[in-house]
Amino acid sequence: MPQRPGTVRFDPVPPADVIHFGIGQPGPDLMPVEALRAAAADFMARAAAQPLDLNYGERQGDAGYRAALAAFLSRNYGHPARPEDLLVSGGNSQALDFACARFTQPGDAVFVEEPTYFLAHRIFTDHGLEVIGIPMDGDGMRMDVFRERLAERRPALVYTIPSYQNPCSVTLSAERRLELAALSRRHGFVVAADEVYQMLHFDETPPPAMATLIDEGNVLSLGTFSKIMAPALRLGWIQATPELMDRMLESGFVNSGGSVNHYVSEVMRHALELGLQQSVLDGLRPAYRARRDAMQAALETHLAGRALWSVPGGGYFFWLELDEAVDAVALKERALAAGTGFQPGPLFSCEGGFGHFIRLSFAHYTEAQIARGVERLAGLLK
Amino acid sequence: MPQRPGTVRFDPVPPADVIHFGIGQPGPDLMPVEALRAAAADFMARAAAQPLDLNYGERQGDAGYRAALAAFLSRNYGHPARPEDLLVSGGNSQALDFACARFTQPGDAVFVEEPTYFLAHRIFTDHGLEVIGIPMDGDGMRMDVFRERLAERRPALVYTIPSYQNPCSVTLSAERRLELAALSRRHGFVVAADEVYQMLHFDETPPPAMATLIDEGNVLSLGTFSKIMAPALRLGWIQATPELMDRMLESGFVNSGGSVNHYVSEVMRHALELGLQQSVLDGLRPAYRARRDAMQAALETHLAGRALWSVPGGGYFFWLELDEAVDAVALKERALAAGTGFQPGPLFSCEGGFGHFIRLSFAHYTEAQIARGVERLAGLLK
Repeated sequence: MPQRPGTVRFDPVPPADVIHFGIGQPGPDLMPVEALRAAAADFMARAAAQPLDLNYGERQGDAGYRAALAAFLSRNYGHPARPEDLLVSGGNSQALDFACARFTQPGDAVFVEEPTYFLAHRIFTDHGLEVIGIPMDGDGMRMDVFRERLAERRPALVYTIPSYQNPCSVTLSAERRLELAALSRRHGFVVAADEVYQMLHFDETPPPAMATLIDEGNVLSLGTFSKIMAPALRLGWIQATPELMDRMLESGFVNSGGSVNHYVSEVMRHALELGLQQSVLDGLRPAYRARRDAMQAALETHLAGRALWSVPGGGYFFWLELDEAVDAVALKERALAAGTGFQPGPLFSCEGGFGHFIRLSFAHYTEAQIARGVERLAGLLK
Repeated sequence: MPQRPGTVRFDPVPPADVIHFGIGQPGPDLMPVEALRAAAADFMARAAAQPLDLNYGERQGDAGYRAALAAFLSRNYGHPARPEDLLVSGGNSQALDFACARFTQPGDAVFVEEPTYFLAHRIFTDHGLEVIGIPMDGDGMRMDVFRERLAERRPALVYTIPSYQNPCSVTLSAERRLELAALSRRHGFVVAADEVYQMLHFDETPPPAMATLIDEGNVLSLGTFSKIMAPALRLGWIQATPELMDRMLESGFVNSGGSVNHYVSEVMRHALELGLQQSVLDGLRPAYRARRDAMQAALETHLAGRALWSVPGGGYFFWLELDEAVDAVALKERALAAGTGFQPGPLFSCEGGFGHFIRLSFAHYTEAQIARGVERLAGLLK
């Protein structure tokens, strides 16, 4: 039986000898402990002289944080970012939940890529939204189908992961990004672009971030330090024009609490100003590329002819189409015993589809572990 | 004209020579920079050996954090707290917003103390709730009126600040706390108890925290490190029984993001384990007591016979009743020019009441500044 989207996240922690490609989190060797230690120490040295930096902080986010972040985004997106267009967030899950709270009403529709990040489904359900899936091709969300659905019903929100999509690793083309932004303005919906993998490119750079299109439509670009520094930080940003920004700043929660994560934003301000974030990012790309290459090589060796996949140009994931007879959900049940694991396709689907697809993350393991894990997986598929 | 509740938070930062008693935030000399420096350094030393502590973290909050917090609460509330009854939060504004999301529907009613913390109003409005004020006397929310309102309409939520209430500094009696818990069970509403000032007692200890009554009713005890360590942390906890806990853990946002503020919870875990949080708290009580005493002395000197007030036994605030002819909102307009400031009563009212009341916070300034500021205020009232 297909699993409902969003019903699983916390797979029990696998035994240490299991190589579980279902884990979409960085491995221990990629955690930038020293960079975070140095940034926190630098912040505390400044706080000794300016202790009011330990107060609530501006609701939009500390001005120094937003200035440092704008410089970082300008450099890495190749497009000038304005500090006044940035709102501090508590990471992309908080940002998406917040976008729903500010821009939707129960009963509204949200358009999403089909398949998509499975836990986004659950956030939408919490807000009483009807989730409508738009199929993808090699250039991302199919805009012909999008326009058909739009003619039937105007969504309040469109959720997209434009680059190296979760789970497919498909990237939305530049042309479609522009069209989506233009349609959002014409039809009065908001695009929440989850740009979590935008900077994690291994070969060519992807098309410009949706963040570079905020002046072209009702676009919220959701960015996060989870995948380029560390998930524990629960820190990110929402990039948006003043019109959308004002609606977000009216939130009671934001007005009451001030900066949603002030202390961490100050740590990251120092990490940005000291160049530590750039160094970490510059180091992560080749590290993840090597993992991607290791998985590709192992897949070629062990699964060529028995599965179909594309080589991801960035991000975290391979998306494998297996033989149609395979039931990925049932297969997962047997994977742990074989010393491996993955996430089954139906988890990501609005409609219980993708029954013979699986998602493999190469982020959590070393190249040697990846090779071993894929071999085990291939054994399972025999 | 009375200000609507929740329409003001960010008074422009006052010039340095203004003593603005409207600022309900700790002063720079009370920021525990060294404790936070030591706790963060200790966490980073551990993370060097256990880098996966920089991952998302458990959605309920790190087990080590919850264990250390439970020990701290057991000690300071004089009642055993269970780690499994604790959910990490992003501070009490996040916790209250989250409680609304999980336990209310648009159109529901929320009962609050009249007057109450002005920014809570706005959070309730965001969730489409109808806010119904219950008047107070010297023992807190008047339960006779509460029962009358309850007979007319069952609220989804009751919001209370049981100890050293904001703005009145009134404390809910032990008997009423028990009755509120019992009624919540009998009538099926949820009590969100904002226990932000519970540990900040200067003389006698207040009645037991609502956290000690979670087994007696549908009680959520919202706790935070904002007032006992530093607001910037945006970290706190919700204490609740398994039944309510399960409903909170079903949240899509929580399932997607894991611990709502994992990094900071690890810093605070170390602050708790090293005894730093206890030392800071033990130091804050006499520091705030001295400020309270300074304000009381200055008020006696300058305003005796021209205002009525009670001496707060803890918390942050004096609540002054001025001559009925005074318009507190208009007075505030003139306060800055006189080198002082406060928050006017109507800001805290559901009904635009308390027009001749003002709230003074003694948290932000030294004793000498407090004496000077009250003298300026008295001059304004002549």
